[in-house]
Amino acid sequence: MAGNSFGKIFKLTTFGESHGPAIGGILEGCPAGLQLDFEAINAEMQRRKPGQSKIVTQRKEADEVTFLSGIFEGKTTGTPIGFTIENINQKSADYNHIKNIYRPSHADFTYDKKYGVRDYRGGGRSSARETACRVVGGAIAKQLLKDVKITAYVSAVGAIELKKHFSELDFSEIEKNPVRCADAETASKMEKFIKEIRKEGDTVGGKITCVIENVPIGLGEPVFDKLHAALGMAMLSINAVKGFEYGSGFAGTKMKGSEHNDIFNEDGSTKTNHSGGIQGGISNGETIYFNVAFKPVATIMQKQETIDSAGKKAEAEGKGRHDPCVVPRAVPIVEAMAALVLADYWLIGKVSKF
Amino acid sequence: MAGNSFGKIFKLTTFGESHGPAIGGILEGCPAGLQLDFEAINAEMQRRKPGQSKIVTQRKEADEVTFLSGIFEGKTTGTPIGFTIENINQKSADYNHIKNIYRPSHADFTYDKKYGVRDYRGGGRSSARETACRVVGGAIAKQLLKDVKITAYVSAVGAIELKKHFSELDFSEIEKNPVRCADAETASKMEKFIKEIRKEGDTVGGKITCVIENVPIGLGEPVFDKLHAALGMAMLSINAVKGFEYGSGFAGTKMKGSEHNDIFNEDGSTKTNHSGGIQGGISNGETIYFNVAFKPVATIMQKQETIDSAGKKAEAEGKGRHDPCVVPRAVPIVEAMAALVLADYWLIGKVSKF
Amino acid sequence: MAGNSFGKIFKLTTFGESHGPAIGGILEGCPAGLQLDFEAINAEMQRRKPGQSKIVTQRKEADEVTFLSGIFEGKTTGTPIGFTIENINQKSADYNHIKNIYRPSHADFTYDKKYGVRDYRGGGRSSARETACRVVGGAIAKQLLKDVKITAYVSAVGAIELKKHFSELDFSEIEKNPVRCADAETASKMEKFIKEIRKEGDTVGGKITCVIENVPIGLGEPVFDKLHAALGMAMLSINAVKGFEYGSGFAGTKMKGSEHNDIFNEDGSTKTNHSGGIQGGISNGETIYFNVAFKPVATIMQKQETIDSAGKKAEAEGKGRHDPCVVPRAVPIVEAMAALVLADYWLIGKVSKF
Amino acid sequence: MAGNSFGKIFKLTTFGESHGPAIGGILEGCPAGLQLDFEAINAEMQRRKPGQSKIVTQRKEADEVTFLSGIFEGKTTGTPIGFTIENINQKSADYNHIKNIYRPSHADFTYDKKYGVRDYRGGGRSSARETACRVVGGAIAKQLLKDVKITAYVSAVGAIELKKHFSELDFSEIEKNPVRCADAETASKMEKFIKEIRKEGDTVGGKITCVIENVPIGLGEPVFDKLHAALGMAMLSINAVKGFEYGSGFAGTKMKGSEHNDIFNEDGSTKTNHSGGIQGGISNGETIYFNVAFKPVATIMQKQETIDSAGKKAEAEGKGRHDPCVVPRAVPIVEAMAALVLADYWLIGKVSKF
Repeated sequence: MAGNSFGKIFKLTTFGESHGPAIGGILEGCPAGLQLDFEAINAEMQRRKPGQSKIVTQRKEADEVTFLSGIFEGKTTGTPIGFTIENINQKSADYNHIKNIYRPSHADFTYDKKYGVRDYRGGGRSSARETACRVVGGAIAKQLLKDVKITAYVSAVGAIELKKHFSELDFSEIEKNPVRCADAETASKMEKFIKEIRKEGDTVGGKITCVIENVPIGLGEPVFDKLHAALGMAMLSINAVKGFEYGSGFAGTKMKGSEHNDIFNEDGSTKTNHSGGIQGGISNGETIYFNVAFKPVATIMQKQETIDSAGKKAEAEGKGRHDPCVVPRAVPIVEAMAALVLADYWLIGKVSKF
Repeated sequence: MAGNSFGKIFKLTTFGESHGPAIGGILEGCPAGLQLDFEAINAEMQRRKPGQSKIVTQRKEADEVTFLSGIFEGKTTGTPIGFTIENINQKSADYNHIKNIYRPSHADFTYDKKYGVRDYRGGGRSSARETACRVVGGAIAKQLLKDVKITAYVSAVGAIELKKHFSELDFSEIEKNPVRCADAETASKMEKFIKEIRKEGDTVGGKITCVIENVPIGLGEPVFDKLHAALGMAMLSINAVKGFEYGSGFAGTKMKGSEHNDIFNEDGSTKTNHSGGIQGGISNGETIYFNVAFKPVATIMQKQETIDSAGKKAEAEGKGRHDPCVVPRAVPIVEAMAALVLADYWLIGKVSKF
Repeated sequence: MAGNSFGKIFKLTTFGESHGPAIGGILEGCPAGLQLDFEAINAEMQRRKPGQSKIVTQRKEADEVTFLSGIFEGKTTGTPIGFTIENINQKSADYNHIKNIYRPSHADFTYDKKYGVRDYRGGGRSSARETACRVVGGAIAKQLLKDVKITAYVSAVGAIELKKHFSELDFSEIEKNPVRCADAETASKMEKFIKEIRKEGDTVGGKITCVIENVPIGLGEPVFDKLHAALGMAMLSINAVKGFEYGSGFAGTKMKGSEHNDIFNEDGSTKTNHSGGIQGGISNGETIYFNVAFKPVATIMQKQETIDSAGKKAEAEGKGRHDPCVVPRAVPIVEAMAALVLADYWLIGKVSKF
Repeated sequence: MAGNSFGKIFKLTTFGESHGPAIGGILEGCPAGLQLDFEAINAEMQRRKPGQSKIVTQRKEADEVTFLSGIFEGKTTGTPIGFTIENINQKSADYNHIKNIYRPSHADFTYDKKYGVRDYRGGGRSSARETACRVVGGAIAKQLLKDVKITAYVSAVGAIELKKHFSELDFSEIEKNPVRCADAETASKMEKFIKEIRKEGDTVGGKITCVIENVPIGLGEPVFDKLHAALGMAMLSINAVKGFEYGSGFAGTKMKGSEHNDIFNEDGSTKTNHSGGIQGGISNGETIYFNVAFKPVATIMQKQETIDSAGKKAEAEGKGRHDPCVVPRAVPIVEAMAALVLADYWLIGKVSKF
């Protein structure tokens, strides 16, 4: 009910505010006997963490995960995996000046109205810090999924778009540039643009494309829990996301059925893939791909007119260390959420046939 | 788990295939004491049903809902509302020729692979017929929500787009044209285009925009169950939907923070509404609006190469009575799903504060 | 939330009041490909239905189940199984005299206070008629469980107790007598006693013992969803149940650990079975057994002092056709609920190991 | 699915093994704005913790709870309350000798068979240590419930039973004796008996009675989620519990309807309370009371024949520090689980009426 859990069998429940002692979570439903690769988990954490490059926030957070249960001699035991990530180097004082102020396009106003109380330090529960826990869960999900290959990359920063189809891209490029764009040339334009935006004290939005290969056939539950509906919800639950489209997406609305239909090959694969690897809500074995739209970060380093909790005029100005563009660090979060969905649906699908 | 339910408190569970004796559902969690307007429910059913105009399928279905429980002397009793809708005038013979054939871009292949068995008549469970039950639930949700006004309309058919902002439109126009476009002139272009497409034996996609006014502040549950994430999942669960965006959506990715941020008025309302009425996953009292992308209907009246369940080449050609464009009839379904989300979150929100 | 569902994967949701047009339900999560034996389902319905012998209510109800979905050519398809059971031969007029009266130890008072409205005819939703739907779900669960053998029988009526251990009993005796006691001699005493009680216009309580053989090892989820906790909840959800004990039960409280511990044989079976086939909440392969306590039926054919909804003194007197003792007809319900629990936990258990 | 959560709105999810670095949990759904009394929480922890008297285990555990989130300036914020309790003073070496041994009537065998791997130190997840997290959740639930008074006490140790009705007892006696019996004289007999049993290296079972006063009318959800069904499941989920009865319980099976029915007073209260404060699964405002049966602790300080994981004969002998009788320390756990049920149903009930 309270919205802190994701998944039905492979289920992640998270807790924590950005300025409490720690955030953390419980991962339930991971089958027993999975040998965990802790370095791989840590590597995912490093991809999300602040301070990793010059175009992201310069906050320093170690983002080290401590596992408290559910693992014995390196293997999952089938019992819940509890974990915490300490909040260090918080500068809560950075937020004193906004204690009673509703920052524009933040969650300050809505949390206050909903709960009548809020932890104003750093966005509290609405802070993107919470997504660190998702990355932990996603990293374990990836290990469970083994052969399934989930790759996300930045496909737009502001108006700079990567026009190439994912099949034309070299995914090994992604981690070579700080933007996490799958094309070196576009990446360098994006990087330059983000630096300019930062200099202006402004922020900019962007898009992430996610490509999932080697998906087993049959994942997805009709009718409300279609696979793409779950992927959509997963992506829309990430901070700053404003849109989701899969397969032909919004462009598909302009097509005719005779163009859009994916004709079968004799082996059951399809000649085209406008369906985006999902038909009737169930994976058909083709590559799943989707785009996620991110709005510009609301915290800007410019003075903005606003109001305080008493409804009086006030001024907000970002202090501290914030991201000028959220998409480079959101790449591992998109992958993590996709992995959580697939791991869950893979387990759910195990009981659909007699 | 099995994906037939939507909602947590206000919860709709549906059953039924297009060619069984009946479809139906159970609506749980509707508070006791709600005086039901059965004519209003029926009116919603009429908006969705086939055969209502010349640009939709000419199948004849009465789509009369029979309530079996949970209502006493016209009022809800707090117990589950069971209902059925008979399937009449099915022409199952229309489907004999596709018994072993996988129609391109349908769910035939995936259901068969997932379950090892399928009801091939009319798409079985994957048929859009199932959405009739959603309209029943949504119609009751609308009555529960009273002052909240949910309006959906067709905003694109193929490349014909309604460019006007929703605030410039006269919503009373919507039900006056068979396309359910909120602008008479655009509607007539769309209608003409759909007729042409039908003549070609083809189909086309489109977009629906949904506008929700008078939303109470505070609906939405952080962090995974953000209000827009639930709306997104709801929309993506509708047959043929390929994308969802709310507020600034995909266009917002190109904006700067300084442009995108919604500055507060002193009464807590905002000067702009790029947020789409939702901040941090919680409604802020501004109008919620979103777009839903529909692909072209897969069943076309043209011969298509395909395979059968043995992997042999075969031919598929639509017979029977199908929609050349799904969006006119999808308008009430979009509204129904939006109503289900809001009713559920409204009830969930009642226990968030002490 | 609203309490109309049982199970997580194998999930039954029911609706319906005793005097509406029909009751019914939706069974979700039954794996595809199960060949259903409809006669076996009907046989279970006959065991529960009124009017089957002289010691139960003489109401006539056909209790025929109509399946509406989820089954194709006799096999489950993996989609939800919707079904209805018509209410015929209701004598709603039998209840007019109690319209505003709170019958002692019924649910009239609590439903009215909780919901502010109630369907007073025949107990509405609180009527034991609802259990017919459980029997449908349980009958399918039994077919899914195949080799698992679930046997319930009456082990006490009032003070008349069947003292023999279940291993000493001939279960084929159960259906040979109208009490459904597993011992002919005790059964005849019980029958005689029930007839006497009925003559007095009174009712009496009793006990049912349930024995489950051939249970696979490993069913049950720690820590809150222990197998016996789910069985307990299942039984306590049946109308008139006041207690549940499994294995050594209440008698076990008087034992020492050295007596109570079940010593292993080399094959993993145990020499004794005080554990009742469940250790740490998980089945260990031994026979599961438990007792369920039923209070006397509240409707008696005697005048009782009571109050009406205005708080004024009134008189209640049972009219119509009621059971003098509920346990004979409750036997198939106990089995059905046990089957629902086991089917659900069997499916849940399929994903616990890698 | 995985059984680590309890509750639907007010929901506790726990993690942790007895010999990991910490156990902990996440409490969701606690309404915002509740001023927490941390001393009261700590007091409950002290009642459960080992080493508090001579008749319980002499293990030393500080059992200090660290709250990590969901609380700001002493008040709940509506966001999830994460907490941990460190495991200190574990003597894992005490368990080395049983690494491959299945202790009789423990969960060793079933966990091993279910998961194929287990943390053998101290029972792992099946250890009663997990109940410390329940006490944290229950202590907060009690504060939410304010006027509802939940009192549990030991009513039997082996064959020594407290015969008095709860209305004859002085509850202030409970915490004055180490047994937590509500009668000084009986308590002293029980204490003496437990000491004898301990000297024998043996253990003994017992019973706890729980009395809940000032319950609001209307808690409980028909038909599967009856209030007593949830209480039963809650109690049966506590380690070592073998039975549950409420109101007239097993004794009620011997009564006639004319004796058992609770006649109303004009104010809606009842003259007798065989119903145990619940009718039709919904609280009626009368006192709720129930009994919980606990088996003797399986770990005894005597040599027992058993097998190892290879099926070879072995010997088990309890080492370390164990409880000779579990009921004194189980009293706060019974109260905690009752509080969790009531808090949850209180919140659920808030949305049942329009």
